[in-house]
Amino acid sequence: MNIRGKLFGIGVGPGDPDLITVKGLKILEKADIVVFHQAKGKKSNALTIAQCWLKDHQQRLPLIYPVTTERLLPDQNYEFILAGFYRKTEQELRRYLDKGKTIAVLAEGDPLFYSSFMYIYDRLGREYDTEIIPGVTSISGAAAALGMSLCYRNQTFTVLSGVLEQENLEKCLSMGEAFAIIKVGRNLDKIRAAIRNAGLLERALYIERATMAGECIKPLYKVTAGNTPYFSLILIPGTPWNT
Amino acid sequence: MNIRGKLFGIGVGPGDPDLITVKGLKILEKADIVVFHQAKGKKSNALTIAQCWLKDHQQRLPLIYPVTTERLLPDQNYEFILAGFYRKTEQELRRYLDKGKTIAVLAEGDPLFYSSFMYIYDRLGREYDTEIIPGVTSISGAAAALGMSLCYRNQTFTVLSGVLEQENLEKCLSMGEAFAIIKVGRNLDKIRAAIRNAGLLERALYIERATMAGECIKPLYKVTAGNTPYFSLILIPGTPWNT
Repeated sequence: MNIRGKLFGIGVGPGDPDLITVKGLKILEKADIVVFHQAKGKKSNALTIAQCWLKDHQQRLPLIYPVTTERLLPDQNYEFILAGFYRKTEQELRRYLDKGKTIAVLAEGDPLFYSSFMYIYDRLGREYDTEIIPGVTSISGAAAALGMSLCYRNQTFTVLSGVLEQENLEKCLSMGEAFAIIKVGRNLDKIRAAIRNAGLLERALYIERATMAGECIKPLYKVTAGNTPYFSLILIPGTPWNT
Repeated sequence: MNIRGKLFGIGVGPGDPDLITVKGLKILEKADIVVFHQAKGKKSNALTIAQCWLKDHQQRLPLIYPVTTERLLPDQNYEFILAGFYRKTEQELRRYLDKGKTIAVLAEGDPLFYSSFMYIYDRLGREYDTEIIPGVTSISGAAAALGMSLCYRNQTFTVLSGVLEQENLEKCLSMGEAFAIIKVGRNLDKIRAAIRNAGLLERALYIERATMAGECIKPLYKVTAGNTPYFSLILIPGTPWNT
């Protein structure tokens, strides 16, 4: 009988290693192979969060992104390059699964919420025994660090990517009640202009490295553009419901 | 010297007791008093999730809602009744905190995301030493149970309350890309009509008691109205990004 392995997607949470779930930790500790995404020449964020939980004998398998940004040279195509990267990743993981190995893919935050794990899951999840362990998102981590009650009762909550056009951001910001804006990075000035035009600047808070060492909280209007890291986001809370 | 206690808001996650975070569990185990919301005559959902972690000596303090629904008799005012309830709760917790007790308030999902903990936090959080331990939301729990990649890359993700008017729901559903609809309960028929009119019915999945015993998953069009419980929600994923 050919015993196949099992694929786990584990949400490691927003940054503090202790914000992994009890379930995620139990499964992580038993995995044969621990897989994580990594930008070329940088430390893996997911591994940085979870490494205190790993045992020496567990195999580490980094998936190193072939490109580090969506802004490429004119002759490069992001989708094409990424598709090749995930095909190669799929083949590699398939080999381990067919040998009966248990694979834990680390995902920052939650594995099914804006995560790179989803591309692995969409390719292998139906074919192999797969289990997802949800995690605390960076949004919940940021709200906790800010001490910000995020949305009340029947308020609409919207997550927007900072990559969107300013006009699009403004339109969305004028519709909802509470917001998280992710992928801030080099989009800060554009996002801030949209938030200002939507009349929400005073309520917006910016946070870097929530729940991690080096955590930094500022009102959005005080942030200096140019050096905003990957682990940063903006939260705009709903109007408090005063009981 | 007057030593005051500390207030913790702990996200216990979506239902499976093991989906509490390692940090939340460590703090929960040390609390003098464990506080949870409870509907009159019913079991507390938050306590049901976390009770396996509690020790015998820890004091349990239920906060029993004076009303169980926003639909009241003509001479009753929901806001007024709830304000009185939270004033009384505030006074009670204040007495314990002033005696130096450590209080852990359990919140289903995440404490700052559509949670009743926020009303306690908004009243006491600035005055007393307070710490929030974020949790896995019911939305992440549901996505994991459904095995549904929820939102990709730069897609907009919107959380809507099923209490909203159908017209409002339809307008929001026509704007975004991926959705969670909470507070389904008796609003099922209205929500389904809005989703159908927005052309999203085929993609919508309904889930009851995600990550808990009795978990039940159905395509939304197959759900029978009339008996949808509190622990139910609808997810509409974003269009997969195929690498």
